[in-house]
Amino acid sequence: MKQYSIIIVFLVIFWCAVSPAQTKQTSIADDWKPSTFNQPGQEYPQVNSQGYARFRIIAPEAKSVSVSLGLGARGGTTLTKAADGVWVGTTEGPLDEGFHYYRLTVDGGTFNDPGTLNFYGSTRWESGIEIPAHDRDFYALKDVPHGNVQQILFPSKSTNTSRRAFVYTPPGYEKDLNRRYPVLYLQHGWGEDETAWSVQGHANLIMDNLIAENKIKPFLIVMTYGMTNDVKIGGLGGFKIEPFQTVLVDELIPYVDAHFRTLSDQPHRAMAGLSMGGIETRQITLSNLDKFSHIGLLSGGSISMDDVKNTPGFKDKVRLVFVSYGSRELGNNSFGGRNPFGGDPKENDEALKKAGINSVFYVSQNTAHEFLSWRRSLKEMAPLLFKE
Amino acid sequence: MKQYSIIIVFLVIFWCAVSPAQTKQTSIADDWKPSTFNQPGQEYPQVNSQGYARFRIIAPEAKSVSVSLGLGARGGTTLTKAADGVWVGTTEGPLDEGFHYYRLTVDGGTFNDPGTLNFYGSTRWESGIEIPAHDRDFYALKDVPHGNVQQILFPSKSTNTSRRAFVYTPPGYEKDLNRRYPVLYLQHGWGEDETAWSVQGHANLIMDNLIAENKIKPFLIVMTYGMTNDVKIGGLGGFKIEPFQTVLVDELIPYVDAHFRTLSDQPHRAMAGLSMGGIETRQITLSNLDKFSHIGLLSGGSISMDDVKNTPGFKDKVRLVFVSYGSRELGNNSFGGRNPFGGDPKENDEALKKAGINSVFYVSQNTAHEFLSWRRSLKEMAPLLFKE
Repeated sequence: MKQYSIIIVFLVIFWCAVSPAQTKQTSIADDWKPSTFNQPGQEYPQVNSQGYARFRIIAPEAKSVSVSLGLGARGGTTLTKAADGVWVGTTEGPLDEGFHYYRLTVDGGTFNDPGTLNFYGSTRWESGIEIPAHDRDFYALKDVPHGNVQQILFPSKSTNTSRRAFVYTPPGYEKDLNRRYPVLYLQHGWGEDETAWSVQGHANLIMDNLIAENKIKPFLIVMTYGMTNDVKIGGLGGFKIEPFQTVLVDELIPYVDAHFRTLSDQPHRAMAGLSMGGIETRQITLSNLDKFSHIGLLSGGSISMDDVKNTPGFKDKVRLVFVSYGSRELGNNSFGGRNPFGGDPKENDEALKKAGINSVFYVSQNTAHEFLSWRRSLKEMAPLLFKE
Repeated sequence: MKQYSIIIVFLVIFWCAVSPAQTKQTSIADDWKPSTFNQPGQEYPQVNSQGYARFRIIAPEAKSVSVSLGLGARGGTTLTKAADGVWVGTTEGPLDEGFHYYRLTVDGGTFNDPGTLNFYGSTRWESGIEIPAHDRDFYALKDVPHGNVQQILFPSKSTNTSRRAFVYTPPGYEKDLNRRYPVLYLQHGWGEDETAWSVQGHANLIMDNLIAENKIKPFLIVMTYGMTNDVKIGGLGGFKIEPFQTVLVDELIPYVDAHFRTLSDQPHRAMAGLSMGGIETRQITLSNLDKFSHIGLLSGGSISMDDVKNTPGFKDKVRLVFVSYGSRELGNNSFGGRNPFGGDPKENDEALKKAGINSVFYVSQNTAHEFLSWRRSLKEMAPLLFKE
């Protein structure tokens, strides 16, 4: 268990290291627009074309109001009280493109910005802001056929409850009732839950758009809560894979195969996850290669040749190893490019390729340990899954 | 349009009138438990067996923190700062059973309680607290077969976007692929959205339990956003039914009938709604009796004999008129029992019965204009729908 405590410490240092202080730009473009994740009718927070964010909080009697931005979003912003009693502030520099969690500190207490929607991250519902990415078209809501995101409640004996999962079914699923589909089990990160991939991740829109462009063969995506039992709220300290493995492999997979028109054999089942979900994916797939043929680790480790050697049948059974990171998680950080999840993903990728394994390593440019890295990773990985 | 402004004013006075000040009980039971709608791992807010609620907010530098409870929840609670800098407070009296929206005021600003989940009401994501009802079993999550709640994105030419709806499909929907189902279109109230019925309303669990007990024939429920176009955030002042009627009747219904295995004839289609959703239901069904056979108005008006006379074919086409209210919305209020939505629902029910119309009037005991009234109303109404 100690290794995970070390990973957590590493991650904190690492993420700080990839978030250098920004020098203030001399000219901030005055083309502010409400963030796309604002609550209906809310004008603030706003973003401009350079990626700055500005905040506006009503709390006339407060002594101090500040904004804490999440990983990769380059720290915080202390708001100042304007003449009308409203607190306002602009980030010191532009933020990375994509989605950032944040929260307010109002007089020493933690609250959310009443202007934005809430997103489950860091084991709480957080505020969120979206900096429009130059490549945002691939997860835009378009006038194309849309799949559904189905909330299911499946019985779980091991946890003695009905547990929730979401299942993406592609457009057309309800039409051709003889067709069966491959399935990707897709996990969120530490502190998130089963809502993350289809809300801040836009997984359904990414799939709808890829299918509309005929870039992938349709498959189902199943997303459930991965912080089962022994993962206490507050850290990865007690992380054990067994409770979640039982829920996923022994309870959820049979339920999905019984209630959806799946192709339920090993060649048609994939697992992927981001961050902690990558740790889970690596452990569960390597222990269950009779059930999974495709492995995706997004900002969450990689597969080494040692893994291959220690896992009987790996070369025969694994059709794809997909590993990805945001570029700000790699390279010129204080670990000299060392990966806090262990191993060097690029070296591992090259070794796997040399050994004749279908290995793909993808780097999302100018993003950190955040959701734009993972939206892009899903878009890159999806066309590689379940190829004949 | 003036009538709706008047309704709003009426509602505010009315709801105040049904919320008498409580005298403080001498003994408050010390059996506090976290509210069932708390965020994972959060101990506060708490409720006790008498229906009191207590709150705990960390904001050490704040000057004032108070809780504003929603309609029927008997006003607010001013918190006081304890020695450890934490703000605490208990409601002056017990709250009604069921779900209540609330919000915090911290130093003059409106925020949510970081302890609870958020629920869309009053055109913002609000905090929520649940006082366990004595009859809560009917909407409990049980070890029974569960239906799914599917998020769909349907094309809407009239609003030039893909709009979201949720569709409840009953357990077994995916099994017997030759079976087709009746459909209930079910609307939220003013300031809420399409998430309300399946989150704070527990509509899916109510249906799962009724089906498991063999009390109803399974049907689909479709829930979409009813504050279309001209209903501005902030009030019902600009309410016009046409934009929403176009979305519902011309766009959503054809999409649902094309993508789900529905019985798409008039005898197998119902519409119901709560509060503003009742106003919508009354107007849309009376104008479209070729499409709807069952009408449900929950705390949202009633059908008079004038309506019957002014609507050609009413007696032949309408199979059920279901009208309900919380008991605290009726009777001994400052209007002498007058209904702010117009008409006397009980008199109207009796007149319809006398005229040979299948009319049912249901009163939820000891509840106000809140979700326990509507959960109970759905439970009462569902067995009456689509009877042969």
